[in-house]
Amino acid sequence: MGKYARSPLAPESLPVLPPIAGVTIATAQAAIRYANRTDVLLVSLAQGTTAAGVFTRSKAPSAPVDWCRSILSAGKARALIVNSGNANAFTGRRGVEAVEGTVAAATAVMGYEEDSIYLASTGVIGEPLDYTKIEKVLPLLYASRSEERWAEAAAAIMTTDTFPKAATREVVIGGKKVTINGIAKGSGMIAPDMATMLAFIFTDAEIAAPLLQTMLQQSNAKSFNSITVDGDTSTSDTALLFATGKSGAAIAHATPEHALFQTALDSLMIELAKLVAMDGEGAQKLITITVKGAESDDAARRIGLTIGNSPLVKTAIAGEDANWGRVVAAVGKSGELVDRDKLTIAMGGVVIAKDGERVEEYDEAPVAAHMKTRDIHIDVNIGLGTGEATVWSCDLTHGYIDINADYRS
Amino acid sequence: MGKYARSPLAPESLPVLPPIAGVTIATAQAAIRYANRTDVLLVSLAQGTTAAGVFTRSKAPSAPVDWCRSILSAGKARALIVNSGNANAFTGRRGVEAVEGTVAAATAVMGYEEDSIYLASTGVIGEPLDYTKIEKVLPLLYASRSEERWAEAAAAIMTTDTFPKAATREVVIGGKKVTINGIAKGSGMIAPDMATMLAFIFTDAEIAAPLLQTMLQQSNAKSFNSITVDGDTSTSDTALLFATGKSGAAIAHATPEHALFQTALDSLMIELAKLVAMDGEGAQKLITITVKGAESDDAARRIGLTIGNSPLVKTAIAGEDANWGRVVAAVGKSGELVDRDKLTIAMGGVVIAKDGERVEEYDEAPVAAHMKTRDIHIDVNIGLGTGEATVWSCDLTHGYIDINADYRS
Repeated sequence: MGKYARSPLAPESLPVLPPIAGVTIATAQAAIRYANRTDVLLVSLAQGTTAAGVFTRSKAPSAPVDWCRSILSAGKARALIVNSGNANAFTGRRGVEAVEGTVAAATAVMGYEEDSIYLASTGVIGEPLDYTKIEKVLPLLYASRSEERWAEAAAAIMTTDTFPKAATREVVIGGKKVTINGIAKGSGMIAPDMATMLAFIFTDAEIAAPLLQTMLQQSNAKSFNSITVDGDTSTSDTALLFATGKSGAAIAHATPEHALFQTALDSLMIELAKLVAMDGEGAQKLITITVKGAESDDAARRIGLTIGNSPLVKTAIAGEDANWGRVVAAVGKSGELVDRDKLTIAMGGVVIAKDGERVEEYDEAPVAAHMKTRDIHIDVNIGLGTGEATVWSCDLTHGYIDINADYRS
Repeated sequence: MGKYARSPLAPESLPVLPPIAGVTIATAQAAIRYANRTDVLLVSLAQGTTAAGVFTRSKAPSAPVDWCRSILSAGKARALIVNSGNANAFTGRRGVEAVEGTVAAATAVMGYEEDSIYLASTGVIGEPLDYTKIEKVLPLLYASRSEERWAEAAAAIMTTDTFPKAATREVVIGGKKVTINGIAKGSGMIAPDMATMLAFIFTDAEIAAPLLQTMLQQSNAKSFNSITVDGDTSTSDTALLFATGKSGAAIAHATPEHALFQTALDSLMIELAKLVAMDGEGAQKLITITVKGAESDDAARRIGLTIGNSPLVKTAIAGEDANWGRVVAAVGKSGELVDRDKLTIAMGGVVIAKDGERVEEYDEAPVAAHMKTRDIHIDVNIGLGTGEATVWSCDLTHGYIDINADYRS
């Protein structure tokens, strides 16, 4: 942190997140890997809090991911403990010991049941995590909790992030104000199926765990599974959603309140996901890819992600080059149903190619001007069906190489 | 060509390819895109030459790929015409006209049947190809053919390649000398399923078209479909194999001669494929990834390609960083059957991780020394089956960004 320049795409400031009843927060410096910065986050949750989670599809998941998966069926949460600097991934028996040791320490300090303690770790893979460093700071963390520390929470979970990421939404349900707060981290190894991306979302709505899980999955498909930085899937991706119920507003399945809350959750998670793409390692430009006319929404998303993952598309955009031929090539390799001669491709709102060839009257000047901005739009119409999706990515620059060629040094 | 420094991985010199009876070659400067260099290749083939081909799996293939596919069933070849500088891809009706115009011109000049004229184009996508430039040089090409121009042929098909690529093999079959010559181009948009990669292979053996096709597919899986530079699949990938039969040595299915020739073809195509990886845009290091113990050879290859495609693995190697955790992450995201706790990972022959964690006595010093070389070896044992494969890739460097951020300018 601080090693790399703040992304030029970063928002001017972090939004101020209001307190959420039933959620208290503390952070500490445990020197797990970083010096002179916070690297452990404790969030304590009120009795009765329900939990939902989605995790990496990696076949080599981290020990904390294995742990969270194993307790998810209980559907309840009292604490979330996150460390940055070490992913506790591919750490074998010692990784499991670190998880068990952290949970035991948390149980001892806070008195919560083991299956209500969620863990997440992010950072270097393959180095044993010295969990006693976390154990040591737990009593202080527990004692110093407050409802106000959202900005500190967002900062403590950062790794190569150049800015903290947080978002908030408010909806009124049955006359009661319901708040949703979210924090996220991630800037490299970002790809669909969750990347080295952690997101923690909290609400004071009252939502049973099974419904909470469905809602999280639905919003996740449109947000964190619709961004990519480098196509690399991490061992550690985790998004957790906790509902304390303390607002007194209950949300039941298939009600108008359900739809209202889902829309707010979609919007909050898309904001967080876009912040992650905007902090893509070395990113200078945000790329918004809209795909329409595909066989299905899923097909549209896969086509969008293939474009967003293409190193050739991403480097062309870094070079401010309207090289739409590389977009064609990416669509072609997506594996989805495509008819070359029905494709329409626009950049910056200008249709460049239609029906399988460049439009006769194509004038590159407005597209070239668009390419010089920070906010690049690529619109593809497959011309075959009604499936659509929006995907976010960023350009591939020298900064990405700088960051990743010497990450461990 | 000449714009970028010659790859440090390039061989010291191009091998001298011997003549092949029934193959004559000419090149010309047609100024399709490049000035002051050859950009059209004509290879004329003796009556009775059989043909085999494999092509990109892109759903948006170039017009020449469509053409070659359409004539492949005839199984015969008299001419190969290749241009560099323009891919004639996503050029719609005009692309088809360019193909038809080139074939008609070739028929007029040389008198060959249309379905014996193979075409390939490589370069920028989406720009109409002015085929009259090819038409104009065809009479001169036809008149100036020679058996000796292999080096010129390899040079004429280059785009961002920093060195020409050629290889040759000789086998003796029934007392008769059989020669196989191959030339290839490609340095970016290189991925499995054939990338912007063109390869043309010629032999004087006598092989019926159906067997020739089988042999090409088999060698292709081990060679061009086992390399990756950037995971991007081109619209134009083409590998063609032509057999003139002029050596008088006939090869029939399932004979010892078949095996002998297949082995030589494997070896030649692997040499060409490795040359393409060694000329990966910006490459400073060749990465050889060997995967053993997978469920099947195909699974091993897909795991190897996932490692070889990972930007995080490739940037770590660019940074000479033995970041084996990223190899674990890549294995995990491959989608293949993997048991984290059975994985073995070695770099430079040194076992780093075994049974799901770093080995206790791991000494990074010899691995760090290996990382400073140009020839990086990653060995992964999945520990589950007997499938194995070798895959080649290259590191991801600032050079890749330099080349691709301003390709069209």
